[in-house]
Formats: sequence, structure tokens, C-alpha cells
Amino acid sequence: MRDPVLTPALLRALNGESLSPPPVWLMRQAGRYLPEYREVRASAGGFLDLCHSPDKATEVTLQPIRRYGFDAAILFSDILVVPDALGQKVTFAEGEGPRLNPLRKAEDLSVLSKIGFQDKVRTVWRTVEQLRQALDPSVALIGFAGSPWTVATYMVEGRGSKDYAVVKKMAYGDPGLFQAIIDILVEASFDYLIGQIDHGAQVIQLFDSWAGVLPETEFERWVIAPTKILVSRLKAARPEIKIIGFPKGAGVLAEAYALETGIDGISLDSSQSLSWAVKTLSPRFTLQGNLDPILLVTGGPALERAVDRILETTKGVPFIFNLGHGIVPETPPENVKALMERVRR
Amino acid sequence: MRDPVLTPALLRALNGESLSPPPVWLMRQAGRYLPEYREVRASAGGFLDLCHSPDKATEVTLQPIRRYGFDAAILFSDILVVPDALGQKVTFAEGEGPRLNPLRKAEDLSVLSKIGFQDKVRTVWRTVEQLRQALDPSVALIGFAGSPWTVATYMVEGRGSKDYAVVKKMAYGDPGLFQAIIDILVEASFDYLIGQIDHGAQVIQLFDSWAGVLPETEFERWVIAPTKILVSRLKAARPEIKIIGFPKGAGVLAEAYALETGIDGISLDSSQSLSWAVKTLSPRFTLQGNLDPILLVTGGPALERAVDRILETTKGVPFIFNLGHGIVPETPPENVKALMERVRR
Repeated sequence: MRDPVLTPALLRALNGESLSPPPVWLMRQAGRYLPEYREVRASAGGFLDLCHSPDKATEVTLQPIRRYGFDAAILFSDILVVPDALGQKVTFAEGEGPRLNPLRKAEDLSVLSKIGFQDKVRTVWRTVEQLRQALDPSVALIGFAGSPWTVATYMVEGRGSKDYAVVKKMAYGDPGLFQAIIDILVEASFDYLIGQIDHGAQVIQLFDSWAGVLPETEFERWVIAPTKILVSRLKAARPEIKIIGFPKGAGVLAEAYALETGIDGISLDSSQSLSWAVKTLSPRFTLQGNLDPILLVTGGPALERAVDRILETTKGVPFIFNLGHGIVPETPPENVKALMERVRR
Repeated sequence: MRDPVLTPALLRALNGESLSPPPVWLMRQAGRYLPEYREVRASAGGFLDLCHSPDKATEVTLQPIRRYGFDAAILFSDILVVPDALGQKVTFAEGEGPRLNPLRKAEDLSVLSKIGFQDKVRTVWRTVEQLRQALDPSVALIGFAGSPWTVATYMVEGRGSKDYAVVKKMAYGDPGLFQAIIDILVEASFDYLIGQIDHGAQVIQLFDSWAGVLPETEFERWVIAPTKILVSRLKAARPEIKIIGFPKGAGVLAEAYALETGIDGISLDSSQSLSWAVKTLSPRFTLQGNLDPILLVTGGPALERAVDRILETTKGVPFIFNLGHGIVPETPPENVKALMERVRR
């Protein structure tokens, strides 16, 4: 039994405690809305170079902690570090999002290899280690990876997509081939996350940004099933680890996702009904979310009312205050300060 | 009491009957995947010219009925006919989607006027009239409009959006101004739809493509509330009319949407859980949906399995077979034929 005084609030919430005020961190809290981030970003080469530079990645991870005193730091990295480290080179064109040489047929998978994977991600593990050393023990350190389905969409589409037609056609029409990609991702994500845990991550968040585009049975197969395997393997290997799943856009399927995957906490997107989640998923699962990032841009009384409503709705249940999606670059930093004051008043 | 033999299957389903096979139509069944559509489209000027040309709009509406024998024809038109007719000019750049001179502040609303609105939409009403005359009585005729929230997003953003930041900032930060736009749309949509009904539309579908981007309380205010007013006014004026709502991406909020707006049927997007909808919304609401359009591109056994699963899940409840979103242009026409055979075998 840990001493509750020494246990970070985020972990207490993930252990099922209802805290008032709740612990708070924000997705993409280290990012372009902060001038100090933009400065470091400008000094790095490409975006992935920043992710692979332990000193710089540590610095940008810590910046919002210093500025706002969040209850958790989340490793600064990117979900596409994994395919890149597997050999499918990822580039970020300025202002355009990621580009990969897409996997379209069985032969294309030969580019993927676990040889060299650990060497490639070791910089990320070093960042985690430096972060844990730099952070106050009251601040939890969150590691993360993309969920297999979401990472696979980029690997098959080769970029962000509007309708996911290419990856869906593969998943629906050639499920054996798509399963092979998913299996590789489950395996690599497991190694990657075990390394993060062993270097100091106390919580893992699995980002499934495109969970919301699949029909029910395909959601079961490509979102829930691989996540379940990954979570159960992580928990078997490191029983202490707490895992938050973020099945963005899952709607009512968030219930099956929570019940079947074995996660401890579920992050809810902004359009998810928080009252439904409290009724359906609490207290068995710790809820996280789900302020609309655009309310953080708007600020003022609209922001205050929305914060109050979230706190009111989640009163008495295990809860972590967060956004429903990442902070957007045009967010005024003073609105984040106002948010923190409102949550903690 | 209508004679059931003479009542189109779509109306029987919307009256609460469970039919086997269910009536079937597909969103965007008249469209670019059909060579005969592309031919007419090439002969029209701009896209809105096609919508305002009764003969051509009638022809493209009828094409898929002739080819596949769907149970319903849906008026060929566009949800942006309404702002265009209100005076906010809409253009469609080739392959780029709509462009409007965006409404950003109170003064901008002065462009909107009801003078000339009826003259502008009369061509659409004429199309409806010609369609009703051309169609066999067994084929239902569906009219439609965009829901106020979704149409307003285009009017404020000026185009399609990725994050709806501009329209959300107005709705959250200046709700009085945004309400004024919504009120104008409720009023104009009412007139527009009454005209469609009086010219022969037997069913109205309200497309709320961006219903899924709002947090719960904002969904209540900007999606449910205006839809409820529109539906109740339509039903008060024309008690016979059947109305289908399509709150795309609403997730669990689809329940509140159905219960509060007064619609007869609810169209479900592909990622919505059909089993949840059957459990939660049947038989009070007729369900419609929700095959993933990409399965129609994929074809083969994956398509057959998905069709069978939908029929199995909705057995015994009032149901209309449809897609969860519009047909995509790369759909092979023969897959639509295979779909129809599977649904009706």
C-alpha cells in the first residue's frame, strides 16, 4: 500500500478515488500554443528529431508543468515513432501532417523489421528517464503509444485521411493481411511501452484517434481485440501499471471498449456524453475528459460554465480533468491559466 | 387508413411496421458513381445549376430508381440551396467542396433576406412535383433539408471544416448572434420543406452531418432545440408528414435526439451501434442505416456478411435499409446491384 500523501493524484484517481479538485492535465499540453515550445521546436530539425532528442523532448514536456502545475506530465513524442522505428520512414511536411510510404500489399510489409527497433526508440526511453528524474514525485509521468488500429491507418493510408477508404478496404477485403500489420504493431507497441514503464512511466495512455470510424463488428475486431491483447500483456508483465484508453469517437461502443479491454481509465472525447459515462462506466472505470478544446480558445464565461458543468457531472466518481482532444495552437495561454484556477478553486 | 397495398413500403416502415425484406434506399444514390449521372452533370453548368434545373434534377433522381428499383427516390438537391436562396451565395469549386462568403459578425447577417427566397427555391419544388408525377406510387418520394446546425456551420465557416473552430467560437462565445442565424434557418427551412411537402414529398429527411462535433449541452441547444422546433412546426402544419432525422456522429446522444425532437425515424451512421439502437430506440422510432459505404466499395463476401448482419440485427423492428453515409464516387455500380439482391433475397 502506497502512502496516499506520496501517491500522485493522477494515480489515486486511477486507483478509483474520487478527488476534489480532480487531478488535471491536458492533451497536447506541450505544444505550439506556448511560445517557449515554439522556440525549442524551431531549434530542432524535423518534428521526429525533436521526439528523438531527449534533452529537447524533456524540456518541452516540462514547460507546461512549470507554467501551470499540471498533475501529470505526458512524454513528448508522437504515435508515429513506432512505424518509423519499424522501418516505415515517417516525415512531417511543414503544416501538412505526416507522410509515409503506404503499405498496400503483402510485399510492402517487408519494409517492417524489429531489427534496430529498440535502438531507434531508446532515445524516447531516455527522455522518460530524464523526465522521471526531473519531475516532483507528486507529478505523475504518463507514457503513451497509438493504438494498433489508429497507427495502422497511417501505415496503410500513408497520411491522414478523410474517409479511411484505403485502410477500410484492406481491413474489410483482406483481413488476413491487415491482421499481420496489427500483429506487428501489438508486438512493437508492447516492447515500446514496457521500455517506457521500466524507465519511469507510471501510467500509459493508448491513443485511438480513429476508433470512431468503424462499424460495430469491425470495431470489435480492429479496435477492441488488439487493445485487449496489448493491455493484458502489459498488465501481466507489469502489474502495477495503470492504463488509460482513448477510443475517440466511439460513442456507445465506448462501453464495450471499457468492459472488454481491461483498461483502468477511459478518456472521453468532447462529443461524448459525460453524464452517460458516469451512469454507465463509473465507478469501475476512472473517467477522463472532456472539455471541448475550442472552449479553451473561447475563454471567458463560456469556459467557466463548461468547467463547472464537468465538475458537477463527475462529482463523487473517479475522475481526471482533461480536454476531449488536444489543445489547438491558437489557444491563448492565459485561458489555460484561467482553466486551472477554475478547476482548483 | 391507407390501403397497405398502395402505401409505399418506406411509409409503412415509418408507420411502425417491420417489413421483410425492409424497404431500401441509399444516401447519395443519385451521384458520381453512375455513368449516366456523370453525363447529365457534365451537361449542367455549376453544381447548383443542376439542383435548380427541374428536368435534369428529375432525371438524375430517377436514374438509380430505374437501375436498381429502390423503394424511395430522394430529391436531388443540396443542403446549401437554403443559404444560397437566402442571399449568401454558394459556389462549388471543382473537386473542392462549397465556398461561401462567411458570416462572422452581426453586420454580415444583413446579406440574408427572405425576399426572393421562395422564387429561388421554386425550381426545387418543381422538381419535386415532376418527380411525384414520374414515380410509381409504390416508390416513396423523400424531400430533405440540412438541419439548422449543419447548414449554419457552412454559413459561418464559409466552407467545410476540420475542427469547426470558427462556428464553435461563435456558438460558445456569442450565442445571441449564432441564435439569430439558427432562427433564420429554422424559418427558411420550414418554408422550404412545406413547399416540398405540398409538391409531393411524402417523407422529409433532415441531414445533420456535423451533429457529432458538439459537447452534450451544446448539442442540446444547437442540434436538438432547433430541430425540435422545425419538426413540431412541420407536423402541426402537415400532420401526415413523416420525418427522418440523421444526427451523424451523435453517439449516445442519438437517444436524446430521438426522444426530444419528435421525429419518426432515425438514420444511423456506420459507426453507430445498431444493436444498441434496436435495444434503445425500437420500436418507437423506425431505424434506418447503416452499412459502411466503404463495404459497398469492397463488395464480395465482406459486403454480404455485413448486409446479413444488419438484417439479422433489425429483424422484427421497423427498419429501412440504407448506408451510414453517402455512396462514394468509386463505388462499382455492380456492387449496388449485389447489395439489392442480398437485401431482397
